[in-house]
Amino acid sequence: MEIIENFRELKQRSGSHSPSIDELKQALDVEIKIDACFLSNPYATDLFIENFNSEIIEKNKLRDVLEFYPQQNNDISLLLGQYLSLNPESIFVGNGAIEIIQAILHRFVNTSIVIPIPTFSSYYEFVKDDCEVYTYSLRAEDDFYLNLDEYGKYIRANDIKNVVIINPNNPDGGYIERGKLVSFLDDFQDLESIIIDESFSHFAYESMDLERKSIESLVEKYTNLVVVKSMSKDFGIAGIRAGYGVLSPSRRNSLTKNGYLWNLNGLATYFFRLYCTEQFQSKYEIVRKKYIWNTLMFINELQSIDEVYIVPSKGNFVLLKLGDLPSEVLMITLLKDYGIYVRDCSDKRGLPPGFIRVASRSFEENQQIYLSLLEVSRRYMSSEFDTLE
Amino acid sequence: MEIIENFRELKQRSGSHSPSIDELKQALDVEIKIDACFLSNPYATDLFIENFNSEIIEKNKLRDVLEFYPQQNNDISLLLGQYLSLNPESIFVGNGAIEIIQAILHRFVNTSIVIPIPTFSSYYEFVKDDCEVYTYSLRAEDDFYLNLDEYGKYIRANDIKNVVIINPNNPDGGYIERGKLVSFLDDFQDLESIIIDESFSHFAYESMDLERKSIESLVEKYTNLVVVKSMSKDFGIAGIRAGYGVLSPSRRNSLTKNGYLWNLNGLATYFFRLYCTEQFQSKYEIVRKKYIWNTLMFINELQSIDEVYIVPSKGNFVLLKLGDLPSEVLMITLLKDYGIYVRDCSDKRGLPPGFIRVASRSFEENQQIYLSLLEVSRRYMSSEFDTLE
Repeated sequence: MEIIENFRELKQRSGSHSPSIDELKQALDVEIKIDACFLSNPYATDLFIENFNSEIIEKNKLRDVLEFYPQQNNDISLLLGQYLSLNPESIFVGNGAIEIIQAILHRFVNTSIVIPIPTFSSYYEFVKDDCEVYTYSLRAEDDFYLNLDEYGKYIRANDIKNVVIINPNNPDGGYIERGKLVSFLDDFQDLESIIIDESFSHFAYESMDLERKSIESLVEKYTNLVVVKSMSKDFGIAGIRAGYGVLSPSRRNSLTKNGYLWNLNGLATYFFRLYCTEQFQSKYEIVRKKYIWNTLMFINELQSIDEVYIVPSKGNFVLLKLGDLPSEVLMITLLKDYGIYVRDCSDKRGLPPGFIRVASRSFEENQQIYLSLLEVSRRYMSSEFDTLE
Repeated sequence: MEIIENFRELKQRSGSHSPSIDELKQALDVEIKIDACFLSNPYATDLFIENFNSEIIEKNKLRDVLEFYPQQNNDISLLLGQYLSLNPESIFVGNGAIEIIQAILHRFVNTSIVIPIPTFSSYYEFVKDDCEVYTYSLRAEDDFYLNLDEYGKYIRANDIKNVVIINPNNPDGGYIERGKLVSFLDDFQDLESIIIDESFSHFAYESMDLERKSIESLVEKYTNLVVVKSMSKDFGIAGIRAGYGVLSPSRRNSLTKNGYLWNLNGLATYFFRLYCTEQFQSKYEIVRKKYIWNTLMFINELQSIDEVYIVPSKGNFVLLKLGDLPSEVLMITLLKDYGIYVRDCSDKRGLPPGFIRVASRSFEENQQIYLSLLEVSRRYMSSEFDTLE
């Protein structure tokens, strides 16, 4: 019970986001073997580090990365534009997706905004003081799926001017097919902004070839569309802070001309240069698909566990509950008895109690998580946790 | 002449800031031996890299820096507050000083602002559209020294609400003593903001013990004071993007609660943790003072060159002109014939023509710069450049 108290205190300090694994190790006396709170492709991290070691460390170029001012925002936009076949003037490169979200909310969202919940909390936490925030509750009985027809009716009924769609959504992994988004964009061209966050899109797919889908090229047609893309998750490089937004050239230029010029660090500019090479991308595609297959297998295994309910996901994570076990007990049991750190979602606005979010990690780690959860399920069924509540 | 054309084109693309050395190498066909455009202490870069190699690379901890989300802004504030004996709630840690400047200008500067020129252009480029910008011209005949009494009269006469002071100023290195700033703060407590940029303060001194001076502890007393501190220059780590601001807790909390949470990358959080150790600081103090002595010697040497006029500087750079030689010719001559890249200041608002800015580098590099400039001075006096203009 003491560990629950300590964890609550730590969580309090971290606001509406999870404490990092370092903070956790320091605050609680636990050994963490698997960080299944952290949402990223570990194989992509391996690939990045392999490149970084051979191109930077071994060639003694670390000093170049650390000492000098990195390339300006515009230079990286140019590179990305060529690679992604997008107008460079519509690409805003950010110090992580969070900088892009903050900039958009503060520069372009003035009157009202709607955000489906549960979701990534920054979208409602970072709005300007005088902006009216509507939250649109996704329902557990719909598996938290966002029905765009109903969402549209809600937007019209409340005359809301700015809209957020996170696709796939976090923490549930709900995914909206590209075709449906295009219809929505068509119907809502009069809105000020439609912000579509594709930070987890590299893990989603619409057919078994696992091709990536993105809406970003449609910024050309729908000038109120803003696409947000974090690189932290799919490339496993949260520490280097890299993301980009695709938005109308006039909006993008107002950002780069007024404040966002040297927002990229030397590691991030190195990453983007690497990202835009065919050689890296062909290797990345292999580890992306390998990770999706791993994740699919992992989700199937978790689904087979008695008393475990899983929300259908096209993210690299699943939202799940184990019978009526409180999520905090489930989270702490996995941490204390198995060294597995998962996200207790009891503080997530718009989510009923009982859910934890489990990230897909490497094949071996996923097997450990599966076997541990299997054992916790057996302990649950033998009423071991009854006295705890 | 073709090289001048190419350089102009490159400069056009870079806006009001210098092209980076990488951009320069790519665009012009020149070999750059010394980058005296870049303002940083190279000995401090050595010290940082030494630590990074032994603590991160050799201990195989690079993955920790790259893969995971770095510590949140508040954690680093806490650490810095303890180390600097400042209230952590008044410290805002930034993705380089530029992020802090941008955030302050957009969140707290609404009506009018005055900026002495010549100076770092972002202070007038990044203000909000509806904010009135006054520029206060520093005079060449005063060696660009900012007289606070006259500045104060100008502020009152125009009823200006927000004030910028860069100390030491860039590009001239003019320095205002701490005592004078305190009187100014005392007289102008009714203003909305007094922004004092101390990004070059580690190179300045008021007595021969070379002790660092800072105004940051006075934020406690003067709630309209905002101190901006880049770490790029004194620690020679522009590539990792690190800086901090000291400002009233209410302003600081409005930033960290609304947008600026994960703005630091893994390298920057590592740097701040290192910065707050006595072991690092004692070594840093040695290289800081060594570099100041180098710079003093360098400036003395440059002053001895015929026809060279030098503006008195307490920065790690000097603004200088060679007779009536156009600055572009001087800059390109140093680049093409000697491999030395300096900042041509012909585009600096508020500066008369003819000036280049030369950074102090390592002892050996400074000697090269001095000898090269000596030779250019001889060539100038033998009328070699007469046909060029």
